[in-house]
Order: sequence, then C-alpha cells, then structure tokens
Amino acid sequence: MTELINAAARAKGAARALAIATTEAKNEALLLIADALTENAEEILAANALDVERERAKGTGAALLDRLTLTEARLADMADGVRKVATLPDPIGEEIESWTVENGLNIRKVRVPIGVIGMIYEARPNVTVDSAALTLKSGNTVLLRGSGSALCSNKALVKVIKAALSKSKLPPECVELVCDPSRESANEMMRLTEYLDLLIPRGGAGLIKSVVENAKVPVMETGVGNCHIYVDATAEKEMTEALVINAKTQRPAVCNAAESLLISRDYPYADSLIAALKEKGVTLHGDSEICRRYGALPATESDYAEEYLSLDMCVRMVEDVREAIEHIARYGTGHTELIITENAENAARFQAEVDAACVNHNASTRFTDGGQFGFGAEIGIATQKMHARGPLGLRELTIYKYLVNGKGQVRR
Amino acid sequence: MTELINAAARAKGAARALAIATTEAKNEALLLIADALTENAEEILAANALDVERERAKGTGAALLDRLTLTEARLADMADGVRKVATLPDPIGEEIESWTVENGLNIRKVRVPIGVIGMIYEARPNVTVDSAALTLKSGNTVLLRGSGSALCSNKALVKVIKAALSKSKLPPECVELVCDPSRESANEMMRLTEYLDLLIPRGGAGLIKSVVENAKVPVMETGVGNCHIYVDATAEKEMTEALVINAKTQRPAVCNAAESLLISRDYPYADSLIAALKEKGVTLHGDSEICRRYGALPATESDYAEEYLSLDMCVRMVEDVREAIEHIARYGTGHTELIITENAENAARFQAEVDAACVNHNASTRFTDGGQFGFGAEIGIATQKMHARGPLGLRELTIYKYLVNGKGQVRR
Repeated sequence: MTELINAAARAKGAARALAIATTEAKNEALLLIADALTENAEEILAANALDVERERAKGTGAALLDRLTLTEARLADMADGVRKVATLPDPIGEEIESWTVENGLNIRKVRVPIGVIGMIYEARPNVTVDSAALTLKSGNTVLLRGSGSALCSNKALVKVIKAALSKSKLPPECVELVCDPSRESANEMMRLTEYLDLLIPRGGAGLIKSVVENAKVPVMETGVGNCHIYVDATAEKEMTEALVINAKTQRPAVCNAAESLLISRDYPYADSLIAALKEKGVTLHGDSEICRRYGALPATESDYAEEYLSLDMCVRMVEDVREAIEHIARYGTGHTELIITENAENAARFQAEVDAACVNHNASTRFTDGGQFGFGAEIGIATQKMHARGPLGLRELTIYKYLVNGKGQVRR
Repeated sequence: MTELINAAARAKGAARALAIATTEAKNEALLLIADALTENAEEILAANALDVERERAKGTGAALLDRLTLTEARLADMADGVRKVATLPDPIGEEIESWTVENGLNIRKVRVPIGVIGMIYEARPNVTVDSAALTLKSGNTVLLRGSGSALCSNKALVKVIKAALSKSKLPPECVELVCDPSRESANEMMRLTEYLDLLIPRGGAGLIKSVVENAKVPVMETGVGNCHIYVDATAEKEMTEALVINAKTQRPAVCNAAESLLISRDYPYADSLIAALKEKGVTLHGDSEICRRYGALPATESDYAEEYLSLDMCVRMVEDVREAIEHIARYGTGHTELIITENAENAARFQAEVDAACVNHNASTRFTDGGQFGFGAEIGIATQKMHARGPLGLRELTIYKYLVNGKGQVRR
C-alpha cells in the first residue's frame, strides 16, 4: 500500500498551499486544465478505448459501457464543465459572520477548505474531472480512486490534469490518483485518518454502504434516494399527473427520481393517474387495494424500501397526510419527498414533519440537483444529517474557522 | 444489549415530536427541569453520595472525586444553567437563506434538529444535565451514557428530568439514560446507526480516540487541545507575559489552556517571559537552546505532541512566523492557536495559514468557549473539520433541510 500512502501524503502536502491560493490562481489552473483536456483528446480517447475494449471483452453490459465511453463531444463537455467551475464564486475566505463580544474581542467566522478529500467512485470517467475541478476551486486537494474498469481513462485524465497544473501557480499534487483499483486500496483509503479529512463515495448503493460501514475517515454519505410522492385529496389533476410522470419517468436511473407513490383515498382522479403511469410503461407494485383496482404486482415490504432506479414504482393508498408522513418516516432515505396538494395546511404540515434533505410542495423531485438549485455544479447529493444535506456544491465542500482578534485580553 | 436498544428506540421514537415542538413548549420543559433539580436535591445528593463513597473506597483520586461530588450549591448552579438555556434563542425553524430560481421555484433553507444524539462521557454528573438541556432546546433527543463512577447520580438526575418532562408537553423519552456503563455498552452505542444520528464523546483523550476509531455512527470529535502560542519579534512585553501566563496557568486542566510556546529568536524579552512562567510554577520542557539558557527539561518529540493539562509547557525557539506555522502544522490538534505580535502582516499570515478551529491574535487561548463566544452554553469544543468547529452551542447541534415550493414545475 506504499503507493496509496505516497499519493495521500502528496495530496496532504499540497493542501496548505492550495488552501491559501488566490481565486485568480485557482481559476487560471482550471482554464489550463480545460484547455489541456481538449488539446490532449487523442491520448485520452486512446486510453479510454483500452478500457472500453477490455470491458467489452469481459461481457460488461451496454449501459455501463455507455457510461464508460468517452468521445470528443463528451470530452468537450467535460472541459466546458471545468470552465464553468472557474466562473463560479470562490467560497474560500468568505466572512460568514462577525461580532464583537463585551470585552472587545472581535470574532470572525471565515470559510476555509476542509483539507484533503478522498473520492471512491465507480465507472464514469467524467467524475474524475468534475471532482478535480470542484475540489480545486473549493481549496481542497483530492485523492481519487476510481474503478478498475476506467483505470486507463483515469490515468490519462489525471496525467493531463497534472501537466496542466504544473504550468499553473498551483502544485500538481493537488490532484492525485490511486492507480490500484483493488478492494484493498478502497479499504485502505477508508482508514487513512492521518491523511484524509473527508471521504465521499459516489456510485451504487453497495459501494456507499460499504464505505459508510467501514470508513474511519469521516464520510459524506451520498446518493440513495427512495423518493416519495404523496398525492393529497385536493391535488390538482393535471399538475399531479405532470409531476408524477416527470418525477418517475424523465430519468428513472437517477437518485432524485421518484420510487414510491402514496395516494390519498380521497383523491378523486386515481384511475386517471394510474392509467397515465401505465401508459408511460411504468410497472406498478401496489398494495392490496391498488392490485385489486388496477392489477399491479403485489408490493412487499422490500418494495417499499427499494430504490428501483428503473420504470418500477410502488403505489399505496393512504388515509391522509398523517399516514403519508408515517410511511415516509419508515421507508424514506432522507433524499427528496414531495406533497402535491392545494391545501396549504397539509403542505405546511408535510414540509415541517418530513425529515429529508429536500421536502417539496408541487415541484418535481427531479429538481434536487446542484445545477437546478443554482449552485453551478455538484459533487453529489448528501442523504445524511451532518455537515451538509442535499446538493453538494462548492460551499458544501468547505468548513470555517474563527479568527479571534484582541488587544491582549486575558480570561478572568 | 436489549436495554440499550430499547432506550435508543425510545429516544428515536420521541425525536419527531421534539423536532416540531414549539419554543414555548421546550422552554416550559426546561424550567420544569430546573425547578425539579432543586426540589429533588435531597434524593439526588443521596444518590451522589453513594457514587462518591464507592469511588472513595476504591481509592479514586481527589481530583476525580471532586468532579464527581455534587452539593446543594452545585445543583443550584446546574439548575441555573438549565434556566439560562431556556432564555437562549431557539435555533430551530430559522430561515438560513432563501432564493427563487429562474423557473419560479422558491427554495428555503431552514434549520432543523439533527435527530437523536448519543453522548458518551466521563465522571462529571453536570454533563448529564447540560447535555439534556442543550439537546432538548435544539430539538434533539439524547441517549446518555455516563461512566460507572457516576451511575447512581446519573440515574437520579435522569429520573428527576423525566418526571419533569412528564409534566410538560414534551415526551419523557426526549432524555434517555443507558444504565449499563460497561465498555460493551459504549461499543454497542458506537454501532447504533439505525437509531443515532450523531455521537459526541466528552472526556479524556483515550475515550475520544476510542470513539473516533470505532464508531460507525457519525462522530463530533471534541476536546483534545495542544494549543500553541507564538511570540513574534515585535510582541509587546507586558501583553505577552499576561497572555502566556493566562493561557497556561489560569486553568491548566482544560482543553483551551496553552501547552506549547514558540518564541521568535528576535523577541528581546525571552528571559523575562521564561522567568515569569517559572515564577508561576510552570515546568518547562525546552529545546536545546532553552535548556542551555534557562535550564529546562529536554523536550522530546512526544512533548511537542503532548496535551499536558498540567503546569507543564513545551518551549522552543523559532526563526520566524513561517517556522512557527510549520511547527503548528506538524503538532497542532486543530483547537486554538495564538500569535502575539504588533506586526499586522505576520498576524494576517498566521491567521490565514494556520488551520485550527480558532486562530487568535493578541487574545488568550482560554477564550475558546461557548460562553465567551456569546453562545450562552456549549456541549463541547470540536477539533474536527466536518459540520462544526470550535465551541458547540445550540446552533451547532442543528442541520438544515430545503423546502422547495412550486406551482407544478417539472424538469425538462
């Protein structure tokens, strides 16, 4: 594991210089990286082709192969993403608040980087570039550990990024790659408390669970979204169908897609809503009433807890907003929960009582996204209760310190 | 471990009710608790006497016995502390920020409780009452696990607190005590991810290390403070001596006391400063120059890393602010670091480059404290990089959620 520790030590060594780098130096480095990605497209695409070839020969599925494959257009998009990050406001140095206490001490709370961030992620090589750009702009160095299937691509990308950094005022060690994609290297990273300040897992539920359960380094838990929609008695018919169809079918494989539908027994347009879902090809897993009325597959306890990430949806009839809140308290994953209603009191109760990163009223669950929130970019969506919840933009990758200024005050 | 899980389940069951409790209901409950503590003084002091007797018979040291012992006066102080918490502003429900995005969605970021907080702590029974008051006011339920030496006291205190809560509008299950103070119960608590949202260890370095290393529940690391003072070339003589004496000797056993002194080789009054420390009975552990000039004990590598919590202090001569920053980066624990200087540029550089919860200029390290910061109270001082740093008041025991309000917007 010497290689891993060496890479972590390099990232830690660069952290102090990056923490005090100017906004100009960080933006210049980002633009150099963006240019280098397109200038070195040939080399990157050749490396990526090796990954794709090897995975294809292994019989890897089409969806994963698609996520793995880079093209000139995708590379240009990645470069544009990096340029976009350069245009975002620098969170570092922001004075969050300041006050003066009775004895004259002035206390300023200022935003600083977290330090060294470890990323453990799967297949998609664009995560390598996105993570490098977001951590760099927020003043954090990063230790990247992608999956074996993208190793050649990630090596080529990080080589290009480091070459660009070496032309900048920032140390190339701001971005480090773990070149051993074994399970052991992931486990080793989870224990690197001496080098890493934070670990962010990005990928499937299995990866995230493994990191949350095994890491000694503090973890920012991202991603699993068993998002619910509760259709209240007074929900407006057309709005309800548009919201449910959008939340379930616009992009079913992502974490902010809806997975469970709770319908008030007093909602008069359930027949039409169910028909609309079926027409969109959604497979329904229903409670006994739904099964009897609409012929769905019977929902089991595990269906209620499932993040399908497919055109499947759990459907259950409930008495009222109270029963919907109870159901969500039991099965929700703290991602995004939606109430559709024209009843302001029920909306307020749902938004007050449901505990999730985002609690929506008459707005699609699909809006839980850094871009949609106006953060410009995101490194993931947090579903935990510490530090940050919901879309993780630049500011969520920071912490603060207190600057205490006196004139010699001592404590009595 | 059924008893532990039952207690955790009760705390979790009460969390939703407490999260939406009104400020009035929480304050009323706090005042009932405060009154009950003085009204039931006899019962509490009798229980405490059992703890003190048993520990005395075991040969427990005087300092620990003193921290364990309750008196009518100390109980009255504890009750006053609870009344003070009732007067503090309620952080829950605060709108942190809000904005409207292009498509008309209104996004509000509002402060909410974290949920269920586990506390693992040592001897002092006042931590039981402080923790119950702070978690209650911040809308969190709490699972308390004190040490065996204070078990009778803690049982009596929590019995009184629960009786007071049962007269209030809040459930008595807001405060739960683990009655098994074994190492196994601590280890079991560290794995209760299904019930606990956060674990706060409070006590010695050994306890904190064990929790940080073994917990699966997210941890708020508190307490270890190897705080440094750097005396720059231009430091004012009287101010320097007052600050160093205050930071080292006013209360040496607490985490915000100074442990290490770095003196610029160009500071002209080192002789006087060292003499002042010696006069106050401070044992110096010096580098070779300090030993030669002032006859200190030779400092080893482990001295530089030590949190003495006693009238001991490491002393080292350094070239300049740069070398001081390097030393602190190597040995600091991220608690509080102080520069004494009249040179604004050096002060700014020190405050920018040193990474700690509090970075002070010409103000004693002893000010790192919730009361001194104006937070009214604190549950500990965080030395980690996630969520919160420095004094942990009510607001630091909260997180946020996003309330997203629309008129049927779907994602395109």
